[in-house]
Order: sequence, then C-alpha cells, then structure tokens
Amino acid sequence: MPPYLQRIGKIQALLRRRKIDGLLVSQPENRRYLSGYSALDHGIAESSGLLLIPAKGDSWLLTDFRFKLQAEAEAGFLHVGLYPKGVLALLREMLPDLGIRTLGFESEYSLYSFAEKLKGLGAKIGLQLLPTTGLVEKIRLIKDEDELAKLRASVELNEKVFDEVYSSLAPGQTENEIALAIESTMRRMGAESPSFNTIVATGPNSALPHAVPGFTVVEREQPLMIDMGLILDGYCSDMTRAFVLGDPDDRFLAIHRLVRRAQLAAIEAIRDGVVAAKVDKIARDIIAAAGYGQAFGHSLGHGVGLAVHEEPRLSSRNRKQLRAGMVVTVEPGIYIPGWGGVRLENMVVVREDGCELLNKNSTWLDI
Amino acid sequence: MPPYLQRIGKIQALLRRRKIDGLLVSQPENRRYLSGYSALDHGIAESSGLLLIPAKGDSWLLTDFRFKLQAEAEAGFLHVGLYPKGVLALLREMLPDLGIRTLGFESEYSLYSFAEKLKGLGAKIGLQLLPTTGLVEKIRLIKDEDELAKLRASVELNEKVFDEVYSSLAPGQTENEIALAIESTMRRMGAESPSFNTIVATGPNSALPHAVPGFTVVEREQPLMIDMGLILDGYCSDMTRAFVLGDPDDRFLAIHRLVRRAQLAAIEAIRDGVVAAKVDKIARDIIAAAGYGQAFGHSLGHGVGLAVHEEPRLSSRNRKQLRAGMVVTVEPGIYIPGWGGVRLENMVVVREDGCELLNKNSTWLDI
Repeated sequence: MPPYLQRIGKIQALLRRRKIDGLLVSQPENRRYLSGYSALDHGIAESSGLLLIPAKGDSWLLTDFRFKLQAEAEAGFLHVGLYPKGVLALLREMLPDLGIRTLGFESEYSLYSFAEKLKGLGAKIGLQLLPTTGLVEKIRLIKDEDELAKLRASVELNEKVFDEVYSSLAPGQTENEIALAIESTMRRMGAESPSFNTIVATGPNSALPHAVPGFTVVEREQPLMIDMGLILDGYCSDMTRAFVLGDPDDRFLAIHRLVRRAQLAAIEAIRDGVVAAKVDKIARDIIAAAGYGQAFGHSLGHGVGLAVHEEPRLSSRNRKQLRAGMVVTVEPGIYIPGWGGVRLENMVVVREDGCELLNKNSTWLDI
Repeated sequence: MPPYLQRIGKIQALLRRRKIDGLLVSQPENRRYLSGYSALDHGIAESSGLLLIPAKGDSWLLTDFRFKLQAEAEAGFLHVGLYPKGVLALLREMLPDLGIRTLGFESEYSLYSFAEKLKGLGAKIGLQLLPTTGLVEKIRLIKDEDELAKLRASVELNEKVFDEVYSSLAPGQTENEIALAIESTMRRMGAESPSFNTIVATGPNSALPHAVPGFTVVEREQPLMIDMGLILDGYCSDMTRAFVLGDPDDRFLAIHRLVRRAQLAAIEAIRDGVVAAKVDKIARDIIAAAGYGQAFGHSLGHGVGLAVHEEPRLSSRNRKQLRAGMVVTVEPGIYIPGWGGVRLENMVVVREDGCELLNKNSTWLDI
C-alpha cells in the first residue's frame, strides 16, 4: 500500500491537535511526499498544483487543466479539483462547503503576494489564515525504510554515473563537456533529472564552492572538483569528489588528506542524539588546527531526501540533536583563491549507535 | 558600456518619484537584468543573492561567501556585501547607515515568511516595508537592441538544435531519448541550459499541453509535438513544432493547417498599439469557427526575455496594448484527448507597423 494516506493521516492528526481546519500544501516536495504527484513547478510563480488537506475527511489535489491527466494517474486516491479561473476562485467555492474556517498555508513556500490575496479572500468569506512553518518537513525529517531504500538506489546510481564518466575523463575536455556528459549519463541510466546543476570546476575555478561549469579546459595536475547528484524515484543523491588527472602535487595531497580526515572524524561522530553543531565543530576544528579555518566558509552538511537540501543542517548554528533515520551529507571543504579547492561529500543515515554510509565508491577519497 | 547602471538609474528615478528610499530585488531575472550577475538560485528558498538599490547613490549585491568571486567578476561595478549570518543581519547593519527608512521588496518574489521577518526587523530599527509589484518587470517589458540581438541569437541556436535533432529522428525512439538528445545538443552547442523542461509528446500524449516526456515510443503516422527552448547569454527562446514521421493523414493535415492559419492571422495583427486580447481573439475565432474552440484551452502567447514566461500575456484577459520592443510567442494549439495535439509556436518582436518574426526555420510549419 502506498504510504501517502498514512502520511496525510499524520498531518490531519497534527491539524486537529492545533485546531486548524485545513492545510494548503504548496511546497513541491511536501506535495509529492503526501500524494506521489510528481509534476514539476516552473518556479514558485508557476505551480503545478496544491494539496488541500482538511483536518477530517478526504484530501484534494488542486491543479489546472494541463496537469489533469497526470494528477488523476498519480494521485487517483485524492479528489482532483481543477481551477480554470485560478486557485483563489476555486478555494472560494470549496472552503465553505468543506466547513474550513481556519486554513494553514506554508509560509516558507508561499509568495507574499499570494498570501495577501488569500487573506483578502479570508476577509470576504470569514476564513482565518494561519501561516505555518515546517509541518510536513518535520515528518519528512525521519526517513522510513522505503525512503531509505530509494535514497540508497539514488546514491548507487549517482556513483555508477560518476564511474562511467570518470573512466572517460581526459585533459583537454572543458568543464562544460564533462558536466554535460554527467547529466546525459544520468538521464540515459534512468534518473528523472539531476538534483541540482552539476558542478565541474578545474584549477582556480574550484575555489568557488558553487562554480558554474564553463569553457575552462581541464589540465593535468590541476585540482578538479565534481559535485553531482540525481533524482531517482523522487529521491535525491549528492556527492562531491576532488582529484587531479595525472599526479597530484604535495599541496593537493596535503589539503585533500586534511579534508578527508575532517570528513572521517565527522562521520565517526554521527549517531542518534549527537548535536548537529557538534558534528560541524569536529570537522571544523581539524581544518582550523591546520591553519585553514577561514578557507572552510560553509557548513558541514545538510539533510537530503525528496529535496537535495533539507533539514537537518550540520551547521554551527543548529543546536538540535540528530535522530535515527535522518539522512545528511558530510562535506567539509577548503577553498584557496587563485589555487583551487577540495571538497569531499558523502551521504549517511543516522542510526542508533553510529551511521550508515550510503556511498560505496571511494574513488579518490583516500590518496 | 554595459547597460546595467543605466537600468539601475531608471529604477532609482522610479523610487525617488514614489518616495521609496530603497528597493530589495530578489527575483532572479530582475537581478540579472540590473546587474549581469548570473548565479542561479536553487529555488526561491536558496537565493544566490539580492540587490539593494538605494534611491540615491551606489547599489549593492548582497550574497554569501560561495558566490563572492562570481559576484565580483560579473558585477564588479556594484558593491558586494557578504552575509555570513544571513541577509537580515546584514540589512540590519546596512540600512541605517544608508539612511534607508522605507524599503520596497518584491511581493511577487518574496516568501511570506521572509517578508514577515523583514517587517520584524523594520519594527526594531524604524524601517517601513513596502510590498511592490512589477517595478523592474515593467522596464523589462520593452527590449533594447542589445537584448533583441541576444534573443535573436537564442532563437537561432534553438532552431539549429532542432534541425540537428530532427535529422536523426526515427520511429522506435522514446520521447525521453529525443528530449535528452535535444537538451544535450543545446548544451553542446553552447546554451547555458534549456529554458524549460523540453516537451516531447507523441500520439495521444500530445493532447497534454505540458506533457512530460516518457517511455512512449514514437511511431510513424502519429502526431509528434516538440516544445523546446534554451538560454543563451541569459536570454530565452521558446518554439513548438508538431509533425509526424511518415505521411500525415487528412485529420492531422486539417488540424495542422487550421492552427497554422490561426498563427499567421495573429502574427499579421501584431503591431504597436494593438490590444493583447484582440490578438488572442483573432487566433481563437479562427479555431472556434472550425469547431475546435473548446480544444484550445490556453492563451495565445506570452512575453519572452530573461524569463521564458513573462509579461505581456496574449490572453483574452489582457486589455493592455502591445508596444514596440515587446517580444511575445504566438502559439495557438488544438488538443484532442485520445488522438493528440498540434501547437505551433514562433516568437516575434512587436514593431511600430507590424512585427519581426524571430524564427527563420519553417520546418513542418507549412504542410
């Protein structure tokens, strides 16, 4: 049995406890998590649909005529409502019929302009609007075994793609060509899409943590960084490898080994109950002790699931404890302007007494 | 000289007329239009930066450490401000120093939660927040010759990609394979990316205006619809072709010719001063007169520029006049569930006394 009705049931219980009559779900991964509906939005301003979850009774998928067939095929266990005149006009009809007098909306995935229009509608029909944060995200934090299986498969496919592209890397290729080969291979091997824009950065470009692949040619003995991920069956992978074609010089080796040591120490520390900031600190202290503290300017990691970046963050500001079933990246990095960078990223599942490493491939992790 | 400072100057004049001390620009195409900064957001919740435009004086690009080098390289004529503790903390420091006491934000590209936090900050430091709509978009409506040259190049490259893929189409390929070939060819030929997810739909799938390519195999004598666009130097193209491999039957020919006739009549009517809804009506009346009114369920077209969907809309609800320098698609369609669909889409520039057709390739437009 698909898990969607059970997940919706959890949200409904939450709504009843908070005395909210219904929730409008606009965030695309939340929508997919609760319904299986996989249509993509063209940005937040062009949504492919919203879920309307009453605290009691059947839920609705609201969309427009372009997505009707897909909505019915993927989420046939929900009512599908079409909004030829826009979602506000449809809500105006539906909400009073459903007896919804207090409606939550996702304040972290609703445009200010849309929320104001919702409030305007509320004033007309006696509806109270409640901004909510993280209701569905909180449930998504802990992955069930079905989700973990999908995440494992996503990581495995991502590594297969890396292996295939890695075997054909050669000096003279451009960053662009390599990124294209990666994304084409992902899709040929069955991924829905990349989970983010693939990063291929060589030489000094690799000092930009979010470099955009360009026409720079890969040369021997230069740092080369590849950060890639894909979506398979809705679930994301995310992996970074840093290496050189040819023989790495002493500087590269030293920095690479330092980053790897920080990564391994952090992975060693991850288990149910550990505070996220503590894990970040363990990696950061190792890098800082070697004199590169300023060169590690981002946080250590982030959650991964239906979204490639989600809670929990492994950052110095997150004082919350990690819990068994959470999935996070561990990705320390050192970036030196003019020279380049090294970031190493793996994904792990937090377990009761440690963590499960999802990455099996260690190409260029230990050099 | 890059046009950015001139464009910022227009916004500053607008702010002074409206007595707003500054504007926060979050919308990615607006940001690129005003600064040339081309970093991509990973969705609205993960911005790669904001512009802060005071009504007088120098403007700022606010971003985080990951994008520092790119920001300085692309928008070095602006001050670059980094926000290691988040943008709100930085604004709290900067706004009083800049003497900004009223700050506009883009209500159609700001999350409700972010706007509420801005208001919270405002309450603390005596700052008034003003939701704005369409300030930059209004300037973007009319393309200058530099932008038109980029749009022409984008359309030209898109057609080259179509030509190349078209020459290798064969029955037995899946929609997925064709979409992948298109997007790979785009990038190989130098596009930044597709401007939207490429649509390849065959047979009855082509009755879905926003079909997602799947594993359906292309067969001879079946309708085949390809809707594709790319981004080149920031500017988008968007083109749809509908055809069959092999000999089209009478039904396909009749529907195709009808759609083409509607398209040509609409293009004929486009000129400075014509009301957008009137252009939509001209195409719609032709399709309706042939008995297919209900089968043309979307509007006739939309603006294209830095965004693939922007103002002006060619829809029955847009009573505004088109103006010289606007760029729009003209894309009537007929969709018949169980059979398939035909949509034909070209891009034109509105001119004083007519319009300039940007598409040169007419493969399968006249059959």
